[in-house]
Amino acid sequence: MHKNICIIGGGISGLTALYYLRKKGLKATLFEVSSQIGGVIQTKNIDNFIIEKGPNTMLLSDQRTLDMIKDLELSIENASPYSNKRYIVKNRKCLSLPISIFNFITTSLFSFPTKFKILIEVFKRNKKSSNEESISQFFIRRFGKEFLDYAINPFIAGTYAGDPDILSIKYAFPKLYELESKYGSVIGGLVKEKKDINKIKRQTISFNGGINTFTQKLAKRYKESIFTKSQVKDISKHKDGYTITLKQNNELKTLNYDKVICTIPAYSLKKITVNGRSFKDFTTLNKINYPSIISISLGYNSESIPHNLSGFGVLVPKCENMNILGILFSSSLFKNRAPKGKSLLTIFMGGSRHPEHCKLSKEERYSLVYKDLEKLLGIKSKPIFNYETIWEKSIPQYHLGYGHYNKILGIIELKLPGFYFAGNFVNGISIQDTILNSMNLINEKF
Amino acid sequence: MHKNICIIGGGISGLTALYYLRKKGLKATLFEVSSQIGGVIQTKNIDNFIIEKGPNTMLLSDQRTLDMIKDLELSIENASPYSNKRYIVKNRKCLSLPISIFNFITTSLFSFPTKFKILIEVFKRNKKSSNEESISQFFIRRFGKEFLDYAINPFIAGTYAGDPDILSIKYAFPKLYELESKYGSVIGGLVKEKKDINKIKRQTISFNGGINTFTQKLAKRYKESIFTKSQVKDISKHKDGYTITLKQNNELKTLNYDKVICTIPAYSLKKITVNGRSFKDFTTLNKINYPSIISISLGYNSESIPHNLSGFGVLVPKCENMNILGILFSSSLFKNRAPKGKSLLTIFMGGSRHPEHCKLSKEERYSLVYKDLEKLLGIKSKPIFNYETIWEKSIPQYHLGYGHYNKILGIIELKLPGFYFAGNFVNGISIQDTILNSMNLINEKF
Repeated sequence: MHKNICIIGGGISGLTALYYLRKKGLKATLFEVSSQIGGVIQTKNIDNFIIEKGPNTMLLSDQRTLDMIKDLELSIENASPYSNKRYIVKNRKCLSLPISIFNFITTSLFSFPTKFKILIEVFKRNKKSSNEESISQFFIRRFGKEFLDYAINPFIAGTYAGDPDILSIKYAFPKLYELESKYGSVIGGLVKEKKDINKIKRQTISFNGGINTFTQKLAKRYKESIFTKSQVKDISKHKDGYTITLKQNNELKTLNYDKVICTIPAYSLKKITVNGRSFKDFTTLNKINYPSIISISLGYNSESIPHNLSGFGVLVPKCENMNILGILFSSSLFKNRAPKGKSLLTIFMGGSRHPEHCKLSKEERYSLVYKDLEKLLGIKSKPIFNYETIWEKSIPQYHLGYGHYNKILGIIELKLPGFYFAGNFVNGISIQDTILNSMNLINEKF
Repeated sequence: MHKNICIIGGGISGLTALYYLRKKGLKATLFEVSSQIGGVIQTKNIDNFIIEKGPNTMLLSDQRTLDMIKDLELSIENASPYSNKRYIVKNRKCLSLPISIFNFITTSLFSFPTKFKILIEVFKRNKKSSNEESISQFFIRRFGKEFLDYAINPFIAGTYAGDPDILSIKYAFPKLYELESKYGSVIGGLVKEKKDINKIKRQTISFNGGINTFTQKLAKRYKESIFTKSQVKDISKHKDGYTITLKQNNELKTLNYDKVICTIPAYSLKKITVNGRSFKDFTTLNKINYPSIISISLGYNSESIPHNLSGFGVLVPKCENMNILGILFSSSLFKNRAPKGKSLLTIFMGGSRHPEHCKLSKEERYSLVYKDLEKLLGIKSKPIFNYETIWEKSIPQYHLGYGHYNKILGIIELKLPGFYFAGNFVNGISIQDTILNSMNLINEKF
């Protein structure tokens, strides 16, 4: 008899789980509490500005992700070749992150001692402390403080919206952690490490119409198995599987499944009871930190932006004491993201660095943004278009001590056989991480 | 009255002089001693292998060259994007010349002390000796011996077919020489130096059908002003200009011109008399060294070459003690250079490093080549196609003491008012150098 599987949550993790289950010929139903599919992946077209409310790009580096994209007949949109130019703010100026040797030698982003530290990291065999290391501790030890401040800190703000002082190197960047453990050096390890057979050349991509073309395609393909506005209230274990209590249109109904895949954010778990009772382990996972982040899309007449916007965008190190976390040159990155003659910027605020910013009024917030845009890009005019998204809880932080939560995930899966977790708080926050995480789950357990 | 100008020599220098004279509306006639136009730029199509007998690529980095190419309605063929990958032989292995920081840090082409020397060159203020420095002395002083051996030495073999121990940094690389003089450091100078307004992004190019499409186009456009098989035997100065004695079809004729532009190789000057007599200054220029070089084109079935040939080619440092100077991956570099399923390699031998190689029999030479191709690219089969060109005198060497010849050029132009030199022994050996050299001459003196 075919197994019948319940998927809770209609973000990319749940959709990917559904995709791979169906590839295996298994029966599965997906329930999403909100009225729309895609989770944080949300694209909007407003006045011909293409706005990404959540993730703006997807990093593709694995053949299996590419296979899935091809199977879905999605046409990839590669980021502009200029997107390998990324700016970092130093002394209120945008300096490009060096890629070539010549840039590296001549950049004023890093002092000579830092360049020297980068050069000798491959020989460096210093001991890490026995305590769990933060990203900051790890990079200070391997590459020095300036590299942390002007490369890692802004990078963490741009990916995790997080703070490297309290993120765990082991859980947030397991590959770097393992490279040092195994080879004694990060760079040396990158050279020696055998290439993962699934690895392909890294590319920054989106899709025609925006990132949500991906999730929409999945939603469309499996529409008969997907139910929105469907809140899972309780899961009860019985001999042959689980009984799910579902709230749909203010009606409660119960359904039986063999297995359950749970992909909702950690902070939403506490809303689900187990066997009719509040489940302590779910409540514990509520402590996983999700900082707020504000994504502000601003449209300008292109001629009112003095900077050429050739590149990916700008990241602001914490030590520069500015208001914003970074700027994405959205209309330079992909084609057709703004009407002709207009440019679209996406500005990020808040995060672990400035939690207070989501409490400000829109006017206060925008005035902080305008100040920074003038300093960094020379923009003096006001935008002709604006749109903002406030994520009160954005990205799960793999903080120091995250191992504890990881253990609880394992304990829950032991207590509830046939119940599995997926999602961006499990094995990596990037879109591709969550895809591969769901894929691995299906391959291993189903 | 319009000036009437005589151009001696139908290589790229003479053709470019003709082009710019005609752009100025001046009257000019070009005489070429051989039966073909283009000088060392010679492309042949044999069995659908496109063979470059002389220069294989052209480096384009100046807007004025691009303007000329556009004006001639030539369609540029850009080298494959993989061509920025260049291999250098170390311990009989092909290592890629690092471009990215990561490659630079991790490459075994340079030891750590060399990498460190590259990093600190910008701070280094050591004094050069008061004597004229060779390229080797200059680079040992600035970047160390290993950088000379594994970057500069092979580069010089690949461009000049020359020996950095006896080439003059001041005359062979005037820009590097000036950067150090002006800014105290090569890399520091590259950063500080104001960008030449004519500079455009460097690109390695050819043309549809090969490099000689360029010279053929010039020859076609001005065919009524170009005479081949026409040897200038004597130039005689008179009050209003020059009388040229010309040998055409074994007949001597004399023609009057206002001015003369001489673009033939330095070693050919001695064949021209001045005012009916051997001209000592011309004879002196005969001492400018032109080493021999052998260019060997080999065609293979692609599957018989284990190496992926993704890149520009391989250069062999002298200290590796191999037979060949380098290999160009011709059919990877440009499209349609070999029939389908075949690959074309161009191998260089001889040069200042191995002058004895052009005395060998073809069999002896090819057996040396095959040995090296097996070591470097793993090729065990024999080629299905071969073609070789022996240049007994290839590229003029700007040796130590070259300044003396430079002075003589000036003296001759003083002794013979209205007589000017152009060509690759005057102001740089590259195709673009000779083009700009002829262009500057016409702009300044005509």
